[in-house]
Amino acid sequence: MTGEKFHALFNARSIAFLGASKDPRKWGFTMLNNVINGGFKGRIYPVNPNEDEILGLKVYKSIADIPEIPDLAVIAVPPMNVLQVVKECVKRGVRAGIVITAGFAELGESGARLEQELIEVARTGEMVLVGPNCNGIMNPWEKLYIQFPPFFVPPGPIAVIAQSGNVVDSLARQIMLRGFGCSICISSGNEADLHSEDYLEYLAEDPHTKVILSYIEGFKDGKRFFRVAREVSQKKPIVMVKAGRTSAGAKAALSHTASIAGADAVFEAVCKQSGMVRAKSLDDLLNVGIAFLRQPLPKGMRVGIVTAGGGAGVLAADACAELGLEVVSLPKVTIKELDSFMPAWWNRNNPVDLVAGGSTDTSFKAVETVLRCPSVDGVIMMSIMPALRLERLSASADEADRQRWANNLVRAVVSVIERFTNLADRYQKPVIVASEQMFADAIQETKIIYALGRQNLMCYHMPHQAAVVLSGLASYREYLERYGKHE
Amino acid sequence: MTGEKFHALFNARSIAFLGASKDPRKWGFTMLNNVINGGFKGRIYPVNPNEDEILGLKVYKSIADIPEIPDLAVIAVPPMNVLQVVKECVKRGVRAGIVITAGFAELGESGARLEQELIEVARTGEMVLVGPNCNGIMNPWEKLYIQFPPFFVPPGPIAVIAQSGNVVDSLARQIMLRGFGCSICISSGNEADLHSEDYLEYLAEDPHTKVILSYIEGFKDGKRFFRVAREVSQKKPIVMVKAGRTSAGAKAALSHTASIAGADAVFEAVCKQSGMVRAKSLDDLLNVGIAFLRQPLPKGMRVGIVTAGGGAGVLAADACAELGLEVVSLPKVTIKELDSFMPAWWNRNNPVDLVAGGSTDTSFKAVETVLRCPSVDGVIMMSIMPALRLERLSASADEADRQRWANNLVRAVVSVIERFTNLADRYQKPVIVASEQMFADAIQETKIIYALGRQNLMCYHMPHQAAVVLSGLASYREYLERYGKHE
Repeated sequence: MTGEKFHALFNARSIAFLGASKDPRKWGFTMLNNVINGGFKGRIYPVNPNEDEILGLKVYKSIADIPEIPDLAVIAVPPMNVLQVVKECVKRGVRAGIVITAGFAELGESGARLEQELIEVARTGEMVLVGPNCNGIMNPWEKLYIQFPPFFVPPGPIAVIAQSGNVVDSLARQIMLRGFGCSICISSGNEADLHSEDYLEYLAEDPHTKVILSYIEGFKDGKRFFRVAREVSQKKPIVMVKAGRTSAGAKAALSHTASIAGADAVFEAVCKQSGMVRAKSLDDLLNVGIAFLRQPLPKGMRVGIVTAGGGAGVLAADACAELGLEVVSLPKVTIKELDSFMPAWWNRNNPVDLVAGGSTDTSFKAVETVLRCPSVDGVIMMSIMPALRLERLSASADEADRQRWANNLVRAVVSVIERFTNLADRYQKPVIVASEQMFADAIQETKIIYALGRQNLMCYHMPHQAAVVLSGLASYREYLERYGKHE
Repeated sequence: MTGEKFHALFNARSIAFLGASKDPRKWGFTMLNNVINGGFKGRIYPVNPNEDEILGLKVYKSIADIPEIPDLAVIAVPPMNVLQVVKECVKRGVRAGIVITAGFAELGESGARLEQELIEVARTGEMVLVGPNCNGIMNPWEKLYIQFPPFFVPPGPIAVIAQSGNVVDSLARQIMLRGFGCSICISSGNEADLHSEDYLEYLAEDPHTKVILSYIEGFKDGKRFFRVAREVSQKKPIVMVKAGRTSAGAKAALSHTASIAGADAVFEAVCKQSGMVRAKSLDDLLNVGIAFLRQPLPKGMRVGIVTAGGGAGVLAADACAELGLEVVSLPKVTIKELDSFMPAWWNRNNPVDLVAGGSTDTSFKAVETVLRCPSVDGVIMMSIMPALRLERLSASADEADRQRWANNLVRAVVSVIERFTNLADRYQKPVIVASEQMFADAIQETKIIYALGRQNLMCYHMPHQAAVVLSGLASYREYLERYGKHE
């Protein structure tokens, strides 16, 4: 796979849109409309033999009529016409195509034969294909949005590769709502020609991409996939959800993207060897992925927990232990340091329970003290309420006062998370914060999460999320350690 | 435990507030302020020997000076004064007290002795005690909010009992933000006098309570707890998170509420025998709990999955299988029925993938067809986008158009969930819906969730959540079946 062809794909300056439609219920309309609304700056050539103009664009009868060789062909024609259209693309010299159309290997043998023919034609013509049976690609840095959903994830450091289009869309939306952005998103579909490992190779070199989130149902070439993953992992973290873990899931995967899921135990072992961080759900995938953007990696599995709520501390300790993290006993010197500023009745234990009676600084001092402890590799901080500097909202406050107060709340939370992140940087150990936003209503909470994300920061919600994130960071660090790439 | 004393607690008409304070940084201020702001309609008597007036209320020097015997005493004085204050309450004839103050058994032996003395004094005087080391109680039906957080969960059908105050507050807040309401919330703290099982007995008879959410770190009297739980479970579902599952968590629980966590395997077994539905996290606790409010119980473990996204279907199948639910093969007659209205290229499998090409009715028809299938006990429906009846927002829409469109979106989602719930009612099998709200921004999404919750409805987010919920309903039904109480 040469970089040039990927360039035609992700940095296309001209796109032929085969199967463009005037009918708003058709995908050939929705996708074209999204390419336009997304702000694409290159040339767009809708192709449809029965139309003259769609969405204000001149329509061409066939790809042969287009006045230039387009970089990229988006193919959304009915299944029986796909092969013919790809032949025409090859004839015209198009180097990259995205086959949106479904109805191939996922439907069984005859579909698989058609899919095979498709690859042969494309490869003969040195044309690369995304899909078939996919939802498109996005490169927000180039305002290139070949997609179904009606929103546009902003540019950022997170790459997404998924064999399921709805998983790509779901992740892109979550990333956007949390204030983060994407480098590249790929719905890889049946992976007839281009496989997940091809995209991984590309993303390893992509300067915008800092972390790769991946959803996989099965492999066309498992050996090559893991070899590539091992190499890429040494440059950038890959976090992955493997679907089809159970026989019920594997059966579903087969009829979805014609994927052979394989034995899960094998996958687990190979994951470890190739440095991929495995996530159990899409939530975990995203939570772990964004942590890599700002957190230093922990040098081991030993965790200190600081909590402003007893129950949250117990739940965090449970979750850590279940994931193999060690909730260490704090040495006497650390206890003594904590004694110097903690309320007299504190529990002298890990989790360090902040109890009541401290100042807003107590949370930061406690986290810093635990971070300094040489037998701690990373800290989980539960509940930031006591760390917030916030005026009390007067009972007589009017609407403007309330608005000001709400804006201050957002700023106060961001400044608390920044301060914890600065401590993480100073001691080169991760500080994972999880907290209810007790003072915020639902709308204020979305604003807090968004404001944090714009700085690639996160305040997780629940104790088990913090534990999953820390354990993900630790497992990646362990891999780098083994391969000697981390200093 | 007589109902009368619980009546004094949860339906107090007069409250003495011992340790009331003028200092906004003190709990004796915050709690009193909350009782007032919550709209309590009874009499409030702040007690503090050094003040005359707090928050506009006349302050009494001691409980002896109050002009009536208060139903309830809230005790927030320093630890060394608690015993004396309880003695005075007993002398005055107060029948119920809440000891907010911490610094008892959770601190070790001397604290445990003090706690023991406390119970003895209270019991001699036939006064029941909540706590010590707790965050109060709420009865939203009576506008009684003895609590720390600055929000007021509305009345509703969900009861919460937790040994951790911050867990109560977190759950109450989540319940409120999702549009649901609470019957009673109890932060039970160290459970020196009243135990979780006492509250369970009360809630079993409370007409407002439809489901009980519980967070437990350990038991004072495990035998009695499980006997009570078994009886209550026959009347109402109890969903429970047990913290202190690991040795790290157990150690944390000991220093938090002096709880002895006990062996987890034993707990798991006893849970099953007593009909309690066990949740692994606070998220799961809430997700499963609210499902009991509107969903029929599944008669077995056999699940049909209908999905508008292939990946979501695979993930749901995996999650179901991992939880012991059976993703059944659909019989020929069901496949044939589906054939009659599904697009020709549908996958003829469970999960039923709706693919593209159906109408907005296809989702409902598919769910209904699968519900009718005798080998299916419940349905998971993934992704409601194709089921939404929604006008396209015009590119030239102004702010008012957008607002109208957003309101229509909320209504459209609610009507979709209502329609699925009606199908569940008609066939007396649960329909658990999980879906991204692809057309909504973060603020619209909070409005959707809230509007659903006002009707005790829910649209879950992720596939694994739907599986956890269905499995929780199934395990409760299995218990009822065994005890012959379900028809």
